[in-house]
Amino acid sequence: MQRYSEDDIIARIFAPIAGAAALGFKDDAALLAPVGAPLVVTTDMVVAGVHFFADDSPALIAKKALRVNLSDLAAKGAEPIGFLLALALPGDWTNDWLEAFAAGLAEDARAYAAPLIGGDTGATPGPLTISITALGRAQRFVPRSGAKPGDHIFVSGPIGDAALGLAVRRDDALAGRLSPEARDYLIGRYLLPQPRLDLSAWLAANASAAMDISDGLAGDLAKLCRASGVSATVDLPCVPLSAAAREAIAPDPALFETAITGGDDYEILFTCRSGAAPRASACRIGEIVAGNAPPAFLDAKGKPAFFKKLSFQHF
Amino acid sequence: MQRYSEDDIIARIFAPIAGAAALGFKDDAALLAPVGAPLVVTTDMVVAGVHFFADDSPALIAKKALRVNLSDLAAKGAEPIGFLLALALPGDWTNDWLEAFAAGLAEDARAYAAPLIGGDTGATPGPLTISITALGRAQRFVPRSGAKPGDHIFVSGPIGDAALGLAVRRDDALAGRLSPEARDYLIGRYLLPQPRLDLSAWLAANASAAMDISDGLAGDLAKLCRASGVSATVDLPCVPLSAAAREAIAPDPALFETAITGGDDYEILFTCRSGAAPRASACRIGEIVAGNAPPAFLDAKGKPAFFKKLSFQHF
Repeated sequence: MQRYSEDDIIARIFAPIAGAAALGFKDDAALLAPVGAPLVVTTDMVVAGVHFFADDSPALIAKKALRVNLSDLAAKGAEPIGFLLALALPGDWTNDWLEAFAAGLAEDARAYAAPLIGGDTGATPGPLTISITALGRAQRFVPRSGAKPGDHIFVSGPIGDAALGLAVRRDDALAGRLSPEARDYLIGRYLLPQPRLDLSAWLAANASAAMDISDGLAGDLAKLCRASGVSATVDLPCVPLSAAAREAIAPDPALFETAITGGDDYEILFTCRSGAAPRASACRIGEIVAGNAPPAFLDAKGKPAFFKKLSFQHF
Repeated sequence: MQRYSEDDIIARIFAPIAGAAALGFKDDAALLAPVGAPLVVTTDMVVAGVHFFADDSPALIAKKALRVNLSDLAAKGAEPIGFLLALALPGDWTNDWLEAFAAGLAEDARAYAAPLIGGDTGATPGPLTISITALGRAQRFVPRSGAKPGDHIFVSGPIGDAALGLAVRRDDALAGRLSPEARDYLIGRYLLPQPRLDLSAWLAANASAAMDISDGLAGDLAKLCRASGVSATVDLPCVPLSAAAREAIAPDPALFETAITGGDDYEILFTCRSGAAPRASACRIGEIVAGNAPPAFLDAKGKPAFFKKLSFQHF
């Protein structure tokens, strides 16, 4: 099998899709003009067999690796400047795989105005590992720690789709009882998060606190409350669920807990003084209250629900 | 075995050693004040079994992972702002290992005024994988592409120590015939590169082109020449070798090629108009000439030397 050399990978695969700051990858570093606004920087590493399946489409793997970082920028009220990619390739990589990976990355770099500005490619005896660092500029940084009693709590879109999509991939019985549309939608939401960059400017102007939901709504809200020194009440019936999620949960209510505590939503959880939602798809799910108790999740009868595990943890 | 949870790792291991921009790791992103100078960003990923040995001291692994990035900043004439760490831990990690890793990282963060400002920790079924992204500010960015005919070529310190150190670790016969001092020195130079940040300001003011030598002097000079559209002549007898390297090479001249083409030096290769060295340990090794031929490496008799392989490649 003929494969690109390390220099070829840089020159043929990544240099053509890079932004100006990458200097054609002829240097070991990217060069950015002075940034006249607070600079927001975030990094996320994903590993085959942990964060995605090794045989997922290379374009989707690339997009998800980038999007989870762009999602962090969006939640902080930032717009992208660019990103750096560190890639450890397993023994069985091919030129075709790498080209499809780069094509997916380039597509999202254009779509989100987030150019590739630097990187590093190497080999690993282990699984494919991708580390992306994204840089952004914010008119105002929206912290986790700014929520105040009386603030409204919002999520930017439906919760639990990705966790249910992962469950569908792992559980043939669940997959079998869903309509093809619901199955495809849920799996798609797991494979390809939607970074809510269209909300960045609104969040910078209006939100008191925000974070993207990567480890499950229940656990991430608990983190936001701890960082802000507050508590919260959430009306579970107000948590938006997609039609596909409802289809999955209806015959198996235990899956509701999967939806509320499972990871990979990449919707934005935010708080603000005003009850006006920034757009139609954002839903008010509760209210920040004083105290340091864990958030209370109330069911339709106003009774607190208890979850076995608040959120996803790797260890 | 009791191990920290993911939240514990952040709160107990990394938050205590982080800089202010990390916001106590309570957010998913770092926040930096506007940077009023060109911003230099670089990333390098290292993998156990490829870039280091899995049983190397965790503090040394941490330091090397950081230093290879700081070395890139130094070569571009930049001083550090801070760095982000993405860490994929293999199945057998322990709290002790992680504490020693973080202690090493914290020591270097202080020594080089490069605070930890963000990160991500996860699990991998493969080997320990560390990706670091470093940010710096440069008064002037020193590119690879600025070398002009007539410029003098310098290296910041002895060449080949690390490649010989790696050879010593792999070859018991070689290790056996060296003095303990030479053996320890060469292995030390492999394990712990010295980022030449003390040269950043001088390079920004004086160098026409620069890069750090990570893949071997011969290949890296060829890259610098290609980027600049020039050629070069190098007087091999002028290439500085440490006493330990001379001890290794004397009975086995083939190891000279290892020294000139092997990786991991992390000395800086730079060119400038003036023949005045920035400090005593930097050595003039040759001159930039017009043309696009590969650099000529001349031996003591002025005859061109030929190397089997110009530099290290992962693929």
